[in-house]
Amino acid sequence: MTAPPACLIIPHVMKWVYIEDIAAHAGQSVEIRGWVYNKRSSGKVRFLLVRDGTGLLQATHFSAEKDHPLFEMFDRLTQESSVVIRGAVREEKRAPGGFELELEEIDILQVAQDYPITPKEHSTPFLMANRHLWLRSQKQHAVLEVRAEVIRAIRNFFDSRKFRLMDTPILTPSACEGTTTLFETQYFDQKAYLSQSGQLYNEATAMAFGKVYCFGPTFRAERSKTRKHLIEFWMVEPEVAFAELEDIIELGTDLVVDIVGRVLENRRRELDILERDTAPLAKVRKPFPKMSYEEIVPRLKEKGSAIQPGDDLGAPEESLLAELFDTPVCITHFPAAIKAFYMQPAPSRPDLVLGVDFMASEGYGEIIGGGQRIHDPGLLEEKLREHNLPREPYAWYLDLRKFGSVPHSGFGMGVERMVSWMCGTKHIRETIPFPRLLYRIYP
Amino acid sequence: MTAPPACLIIPHVMKWVYIEDIAAHAGQSVEIRGWVYNKRSSGKVRFLLVRDGTGLLQATHFSAEKDHPLFEMFDRLTQESSVVIRGAVREEKRAPGGFELELEEIDILQVAQDYPITPKEHSTPFLMANRHLWLRSQKQHAVLEVRAEVIRAIRNFFDSRKFRLMDTPILTPSACEGTTTLFETQYFDQKAYLSQSGQLYNEATAMAFGKVYCFGPTFRAERSKTRKHLIEFWMVEPEVAFAELEDIIELGTDLVVDIVGRVLENRRRELDILERDTAPLAKVRKPFPKMSYEEIVPRLKEKGSAIQPGDDLGAPEESLLAELFDTPVCITHFPAAIKAFYMQPAPSRPDLVLGVDFMASEGYGEIIGGGQRIHDPGLLEEKLREHNLPREPYAWYLDLRKFGSVPHSGFGMGVERMVSWMCGTKHIRETIPFPRLLYRIYP
Repeated sequence: MTAPPACLIIPHVMKWVYIEDIAAHAGQSVEIRGWVYNKRSSGKVRFLLVRDGTGLLQATHFSAEKDHPLFEMFDRLTQESSVVIRGAVREEKRAPGGFELELEEIDILQVAQDYPITPKEHSTPFLMANRHLWLRSQKQHAVLEVRAEVIRAIRNFFDSRKFRLMDTPILTPSACEGTTTLFETQYFDQKAYLSQSGQLYNEATAMAFGKVYCFGPTFRAERSKTRKHLIEFWMVEPEVAFAELEDIIELGTDLVVDIVGRVLENRRRELDILERDTAPLAKVRKPFPKMSYEEIVPRLKEKGSAIQPGDDLGAPEESLLAELFDTPVCITHFPAAIKAFYMQPAPSRPDLVLGVDFMASEGYGEIIGGGQRIHDPGLLEEKLREHNLPREPYAWYLDLRKFGSVPHSGFGMGVERMVSWMCGTKHIRETIPFPRLLYRIYP
Repeated sequence: MTAPPACLIIPHVMKWVYIEDIAAHAGQSVEIRGWVYNKRSSGKVRFLLVRDGTGLLQATHFSAEKDHPLFEMFDRLTQESSVVIRGAVREEKRAPGGFELELEEIDILQVAQDYPITPKEHSTPFLMANRHLWLRSQKQHAVLEVRAEVIRAIRNFFDSRKFRLMDTPILTPSACEGTTTLFETQYFDQKAYLSQSGQLYNEATAMAFGKVYCFGPTFRAERSKTRKHLIEFWMVEPEVAFAELEDIIELGTDLVVDIVGRVLENRRRELDILERDTAPLAKVRKPFPKMSYEEIVPRLKEKGSAIQPGDDLGAPEESLLAELFDTPVCITHFPAAIKAFYMQPAPSRPDLVLGVDFMASEGYGEIIGGGQRIHDPGLLEEKLREHNLPREPYAWYLDLRKFGSVPHSGFGMGVERMVSWMCGTKHIRETIPFPRLLYRIYP
C-alpha cells in the first residue's frame, strides 16, 4: 500500500456510537468503529467480537445462504483488523455487556497481518518491546482504566477541598535531596536537573495560596531494578500552610480512603478482569493504625526482620508489615539521619523528625511520604550546613522562613504505587502506559 | 533565631476557617491564619488586612484605651508578618468581601523584616528573581487562580466526554519533530530527550482506548525570547481514533468555548483584579470562522503582511488576524512543507495537509495546533524518508499503521497561551508559577 485505500475514508451513513454507551441505543441501528478482538462460527451464525477502546461488543450474523457476502468478509478478518460495523442493538443477556449487534454491514478498513500478541503466553521483554500494542490487551487496558480513575479521584479530592493546583517546574537549577540520582541536562549556559519532587516549590506557593497541590511526572535516575520502582513516575504533592504533622496524617488518610472507595465503586469490572480480591481493599477505613519508628522496629524484629535501629525500612520490612496489619499503617517520628534536611525535628527529641510514611496493606509498600517542614530560618540554615548543601541555590527557599514563616506540612503520593496496590499487579511497570525502567526507554 | 520560637506552635483553641468560606460563619467566633497584607489606623480603630491565600479579610479593633495590648501588637506588625487572629465574623458591606472580623486576639508567629516587594514599582528582572514571593501579590495570585480554573475546565471537559487520560512519557529515545530544539540527557547507557509532545504515544493509546488525552509538561530548547514562548510549558493533547479533520475542529471549538465560559463564570473576581476587558471573551461562540491557508494569505497581505505563499504565520500575522476577526479563527490546509511529517495529505492536493491551527482573538496567537495523521503505512514510511528521519526509532509508530490502521486525528493546546489570553497578560511568563525562560531557571 502506498496510497490510502479508499475504504479508509469512513462513510458517514449512520450514528457512530461507542460501545460503553450502547445500552442507550437498544432497538436502534447504530455504527460501531473498532477492531476485531475475536471471532467464531457456529453453523449458520457468525460471531464477531469487536473492541473500540471503551468496551467489547458481540456482533452476530445469521444467514441460511452459505456464500452470503458478509460471510466472505467475516472469513477475511483477523485479530486487530480495523472495521466499521452497522446493525441494530439488541439486549442479549448471554453476550458480554448484556447487548449485542445484529450485524448488517461490515466495512473493512484494514486486514491486520500477523498481529504479534496472540492469546498464548509471551515473555515479559517481548511484551515490553511491544508495549504500544500490549496496551490493547484486556488486562493492560483494565490496569490503565484504574490508573485514570485513581488520578481523577486524586484531582477531585483536592479540587473539592479547594486546594489550588500549582504546577511546579521540572527543570530545576538544584537538587531537592542531593544530586546522585538526578538526570542532568544542559540548560543554555548552565546545568539543570529533572525534578525529583515539587515540594520546595510547593512550600512557596502554599505561602501564597494557603493550600496547594502539584501533580506531575518526577524522575529518579536510580540504578535499581525492583518491582516497585520506575525511573519516571507521577506524584501528587499537597502542601498546607499552618498544618502540622497530625493535620496531614488526617489529609493523607482521607485521600487514601477516598481513592480506594472510588476505585471499588467505579472500577468493579476492571478489578474483576484483573481477578483482584477486593476484600483487603474493603478494609481500608479511617483511622489507620499509627506507630512511631521506635515502636515498629522491635515488632518487625520479632517477626524476623534484620533491621537495626536507625536503618530505613526496606522491601523485607514492607512484607512483614503486611503480617502485622491488614490495613495501611502510618509510621511516624523517623530518625533524622535517614530523612531529608528540611524535616522539622520533634519538639522534645531533636534526633527524630515529624515525618510520616503511609505503607499500603498487602506488602505494596510506601504510598505516601511526608511530614512537617522546618519553619525556623536559623535551624534550616544549620541543616543545610549539616547536609553539605550550598546556600546560594536555596536562598529563595530560606526566604520563605524570613517573610512570614509559618508551620507547614505536606506529602507526596506515588500514583503508580497506588495503582499497583489497587490492581494487585506484581510489578509496577504495568501501571503506566509507557514505563521507563533501567535500560528500558523504548517504545 | 536558631530555635523555633514557642509562638510558632499554633494554639488549637478555636475553629480554623479559610477566608473564602467566611460567609458561612457570620455571627460566629473563628480563627484565621494568614499574613498581614496591609494595616491602617483611624483614631481609636485599627484595621488589619489579612490574606490567607484564599482571600483578603479586614479585621477591626476598637478600643478607648490608648495602650490596649492589641494596639501594641498591631504596631509591631509589618507587611507579610504571619499571624493567627481570632474574633467574631460580622457582615460589613464596606469591607472587601462583604465581611469583617471583630478582632479580639492576635498571635504573632513571625514579624517579617524588609519584605522586598512593596507597593512601589519594581523592575521585571527583580520580580522574576523574587518569583517565590511575587506569587503573593494580588495580580499574580489572580493569574494563577485563572490558570487553575483553565486546567480544571480542560480536565472536566475531557473526562465528561469519557476521554481516557493516558500519560505519555517525558523521557523519550527519539524526537517527535527533529532534534534541534530538544533537551538531551544521559539515560544510563544511551541518550534520551525531553518530550516536545505526547502525540506519537497518544496515537498508540488511542488505538487501545478509542479517545484519549495526555496532559503534562513539554519542553522546547528554543533560543528565542518572545512574549509568547516558554521553555517549559503545559500542553493538553487529545487524540481520537476514527476522527477526521472536521471532527477535531469541532472538538477544539467546543473545548475553547467551554474554557472561556467557565473562566467568565467562575473567575469574574480575578478578571476584575486584572482589569481584563471581558467583552472580547464574551464573543467566543461556536462555530469559529474557518479559512484555508491559501485563503488567508492574500487577506493578510492586503492588510500589510510581508508573508509569502509557503511561509508559516508569524507574530505580525497573528496581530493582523485580530484586525480581520474578533473571535478565534481556524486556519486549515497548510503547505505540507511547513508542517510535520505525520500529517495526512489533503485528498486532491497532496502538497497540502489536513492540519488546523486555532488562533486566539486579540492577537494572542496560536492556542491549538493539530490535524489528521497519516494512516497508510507506505505513505508514512515515504514521509520518514523525505524528512531524513531514521526508521528504527519509529518502528513502533509504523506498527500502528500495520495492525488495524484507522484514520485518526488530534491536537495540542498550550495551557499558558490560553491563560495569557484569558487574563490579558502582555507576557506569557506570568501564567505559570515558576517560568522557565531563556537564561532564567531561578528560582
